[in-house]
Amino acid sequence: MDFYPAAIEKLIEEFAKLPGIGYKTAQRLTLYILNLPGDEVKEFAKALVNARGTIRYCSVCGNFTDSDPCAICSNPNRDKSVICVVEQPKDIMAMERIKEYNGVYHVLHGNISPMAGRGPNDIKLKELITRINGNVKEVIVATNPNVEGEATAMYISKILKHLGVKVTRIAHGIPVGGNLEYADEITLSKALEGRVEI
Amino acid sequence: MDFYPAAIEKLIEEFAKLPGIGYKTAQRLTLYILNLPGDEVKEFAKALVNARGTIRYCSVCGNFTDSDPCAICSNPNRDKSVICVVEQPKDIMAMERIKEYNGVYHVLHGNISPMAGRGPNDIKLKELITRINGNVKEVIVATNPNVEGEATAMYISKILKHLGVKVTRIAHGIPVGGNLEYADEITLSKALEGRVEI
Repeated sequence: MDFYPAAIEKLIEEFAKLPGIGYKTAQRLTLYILNLPGDEVKEFAKALVNARGTIRYCSVCGNFTDSDPCAICSNPNRDKSVICVVEQPKDIMAMERIKEYNGVYHVLHGNISPMAGRGPNDIKLKELITRINGNVKEVIVATNPNVEGEATAMYISKILKHLGVKVTRIAHGIPVGGNLEYADEITLSKALEGRVEI
Repeated sequence: MDFYPAAIEKLIEEFAKLPGIGYKTAQRLTLYILNLPGDEVKEFAKALVNARGTIRYCSVCGNFTDSDPCAICSNPNRDKSVICVVEQPKDIMAMERIKEYNGVYHVLHGNISPMAGRGPNDIKLKELITRINGNVKEVIVATNPNVEGEATAMYISKILKHLGVKVTRIAHGIPVGGNLEYADEITLSKALEGRVEI
């Protein structure tokens, strides 16, 4: 495709590098940009550079932040004795949305996957271990409920129990509003396993 | 959603303004940008501003260009006696891809749609009329084969015939590799209407 002027072709290429964006979509987005007022395009460009430039990882929990430690770690009202372990910063956003959890977080930035060659040293596990002291009462492992997430949870539990800290795992089961009929066997078996008296 | 630092939230907003990109996708793209090397993000930002800044419309045909007149209009090997009329610059790209057309183009930048309140003055029709002179032998109307495209084609044909120029319309019919069974009635009726002797 060499019918577009170079500057257009370049922008299409840049858009096409983004995950889930193919050539056709990149072309559509580029033509959209060309029709925008120049100021709006500059604002978009500024937001890109700004986000990448000002955002760091919190030195305590590994969350995205523009101040260090992050807003959650430096909040005196958050309960520092409970640490919720998640795989990615976006999982923190999901947890925060339920507005019920008042502890702090630890982001692993990945999971353990022997199949993909990712071991305990490829995630922020050492950083978690150094945070465990007499004040930490519970570590809630909220890694994803898939093979890698489970393996990671098991490994963390094994390591932290040696340090004498209580390790819990978020419950698996049928989603609220879900349907028994459509639940896969593993979820259903986990739901049965985790049954509670009513 | 006010759990992200402001710079992240701002970039998500900017991505979400793009057509076909919702909040979830914008969030995914933003997190991807945050993990890119700073230089690549700057290059993306530069490509945005560059494309918008250096690209203009060709003063002759209305195509996107970085030089005026555009590469097609200023090419001495292109046949200036045939003008292909299209709705958008991207339609030129589609035509150029077949590598068979050697005439020049005219971009209407829209179509006539009485339903949507877009009349002949809302598209670059006057600009087309001023290009018609003794040297132009044929105008091929390649607007889209839908209600608006057809209305536009009819209107152009009516106007240009008064000026004594031959006006043709691209053929409608069953797409190559298509299937009679799945063709809609209008396409099939057009295909029948446009049948040629073999």
